[in-house]
Amino acid sequence: MSRQSNRTTDNKKMNSELFTLTYGALVTQLCKDYENDEEVNKQLDKMGYNIGVRLIEDFLARSSVGRCQDFRETADVIAKVAFKMYLGVTPSVTNWSPAGDEFSLVLESNPLVDFVELPDNHNVLIYSNLLCGVLRGALEMVQMAVDVRFAQDTLRGDNVTEIRMKFIKRIEENLPYHIRFF
Amino acid sequence: MSRQSNRTTDNKKMNSELFTLTYGALVTQLCKDYENDEEVNKQLDKMGYNIGVRLIEDFLARSSVGRCQDFRETADVIAKVAFKMYLGVTPSVTNWSPAGDEFSLVLESNPLVDFVELPDNHNVLIYSNLLCGVLRGALEMVQMAVDVRFAQDTLRGDNVTEIRMKFIKRIEENLPYHIRFF
Repeated sequence: MSRQSNRTTDNKKMNSELFTLTYGALVTQLCKDYENDEEVNKQLDKMGYNIGVRLIEDFLARSSVGRCQDFRETADVIAKVAFKMYLGVTPSVTNWSPAGDEFSLVLESNPLVDFVELPDNHNVLIYSNLLCGVLRGALEMVQMAVDVRFAQDTLRGDNVTEIRMKFIKRIEENLPYHIRFF
Repeated sequence: MSRQSNRTTDNKKMNSELFTLTYGALVTQLCKDYENDEEVNKQLDKMGYNIGVRLIEDFLARSSVGRCQDFRETADVIAKVAFKMYLGVTPSVTNWSPAGDEFSLVLESNPLVDFVELPDNHNVLIYSNLLCGVLRGALEMVQMAVDVRFAQDTLRGDNVTEIRMKFIKRIEENLPYHIRFF
């Protein structure tokens, strides 16, 4: 499915429940399709990545957020603008590494799991792993390579959901030759 | 995945784009899984049905809508309350049959297809068919059997999206024996 060129950026605000249940249908389908949870986790991350590389354009158009000066600003924009916009929740930014290259997004409540309990035979499944892929894909499009993974998950009995993000490197832009060397 | 008992009904309003792209990932996955579009259409309807039978409880809790007196009232509630709540759009209710047992929901804009163009080899695909299943499933839980299908679809070149709904019958409630016969 390819992107339509004439779509609008009007604000259609919706409650999250239909999304939550549709996401559940997607995970259930992948669990049927793939042999083990590790493979489902990989697929969710891959799907999320593909979503992220498209969603970033919508995000930049809607938010009018400019280029972030550093990883701390990036963290704040993700938590306060992006999560709020697309999931209706605002995680807290916390657990910074001393070097400032790693932080956590902590969600008191994760809309994706509102109706969900993991069956016992899916204890390796990272149910919300699509989100990691979305973040990775979106940031790659603004020249940031990051590692994203779930550190805590309420579905596995943790008190909160914690997404850990690690800055890897800034991706060199494909600048025109004469700009790159002057 | 089973429903969690302690979830809240707080309002998490979100933009539709992440949902739209996630739905796209679901349809794409089904197109990989099944041999032909007809089968994908069936699966989408079935998934939607399973979502509808769960979503209705959330809807009744959130909307405090009571029992509808007739199919016209049902049509209005679906368009003005349910679509607005879960998709952020309000279709118009139109094209009533003379007997009052059939109407259309006409959407100027369908959030599910915001980023989508159908490839040529999927011209039988009813991309948004999940919605038909959701409506069928939700209404069945309030004792209404309905037939739901897409009559027009912007993805197929129509100017609007039109969902046609036909009342089939009221489903007898499982009332306790002594109530049913007095």
